[in-house]
Amino acid sequence: MKKQKVSSAVIRRLPRYYRHLNDLHQAGVERISSNALGASLGLTASQIRQDLSCFGEFGQQGYGYNVSSLRDEVADILGVNRGHCAVILGVGNLGRALMENFHFDRFGVTLAAAFDVVPEIVGRSCSGVPVYHTDQLEEYLTQHPANIGVLTVPGRVANRVAERLVSAGVKGIWNFTNIELTVDAPDIVVEDVHFADSLLALNYMISEAP
Amino acid sequence: MKKQKVSSAVIRRLPRYYRHLNDLHQAGVERISSNALGASLGLTASQIRQDLSCFGEFGQQGYGYNVSSLRDEVADILGVNRGHCAVILGVGNLGRALMENFHFDRFGVTLAAAFDVVPEIVGRSCSGVPVYHTDQLEEYLTQHPANIGVLTVPGRVANRVAERLVSAGVKGIWNFTNIELTVDAPDIVVEDVHFADSLLALNYMISEAP
Repeated sequence: MKKQKVSSAVIRRLPRYYRHLNDLHQAGVERISSNALGASLGLTASQIRQDLSCFGEFGQQGYGYNVSSLRDEVADILGVNRGHCAVILGVGNLGRALMENFHFDRFGVTLAAAFDVVPEIVGRSCSGVPVYHTDQLEEYLTQHPANIGVLTVPGRVANRVAERLVSAGVKGIWNFTNIELTVDAPDIVVEDVHFADSLLALNYMISEAP
Repeated sequence: MKKQKVSSAVIRRLPRYYRHLNDLHQAGVERISSNALGASLGLTASQIRQDLSCFGEFGQQGYGYNVSSLRDEVADILGVNRGHCAVILGVGNLGRALMENFHFDRFGVTLAAAFDVVPEIVGRSCSGVPVYHTDQLEEYLTQHPANIGVLTVPGRVANRVAERLVSAGVKGIWNFTNIELTVDAPDIVVEDVHFADSLLALNYMISEAP
């Protein structure tokens, strides 16, 4: 599948398509028109057709989309089947919430190991994932390469830990620290989950609501 | 300040402006040009001027922006000073992570109470916030109105709890359940923090990276 340069707005919509197609598939829906798909996602049919056209030809005039094959194609576009491997740094409340409740494997990511500095946690395992001391990070990653680092450490050590992850070969950082990372490597992807920005946007919207 | 209809892209950028202006202010910076502000945010100066023009006139030709007054204006736009009040539903790992580590008050929100069904937690307090039984939600909100509900309950009860919050007068739901809520009330704002979408976008971007 030949890809053109894809805008970040499209990249942000693809996961929603994927989740929604998954739900439809599980509900036994076999095909869906771009109108119906759009309506349930709050988008127009032409928007959906245009988004998908960035990645090739999908669907059939007058028939719509085959739900399971479109889901598989979107999964493929999103890299769900590429065997991504992650380590998580910081096994506090948030780290544990992700380890215990977030199903990394459903999104094509194997969570292989966790790292922390708290003696009570190091050497144990959490949801089947072994917890090592952060000092062992480089040694571990040399033996078990990972391409994603999940950052749930305290903000004050966020940049230091991010730099160690990058030096050890991680390509993407999923950043929950509410800190803007200053990682200085052009091919590293940082995906921020900024709780603050989200709450501020909510504040704004409820202030504006009728 | 007269506001025009503001696009969601602008609403998403405002919190970043706010955080950044806060950092600049704390670093002792008194004024900044729109060029410099743009450069540090990865935006063009004209983009920033255009975004801010939705809300009025800021800055001065040839002088730039006064950092602390622009920060205050953006805070005002975002509703940071409107005395928002929140309750949190679900005191699991994620709920606790937010209660212990996320400073609601820094973003103009008072976190007044938490609700859960687990006997070991109910009746205690967490980071100074009292935890009540979820059965007491309506009674509590009648006596202590809140306009934001933070949803960190398990996905299977997410919609039920969301409906109760809305019936009890909450205007905005900060949704961490990874479930698309089906709240059927047009003036309710749902702000989703979809971990899955964020991880899938990261997957995509590292698959695309050179």
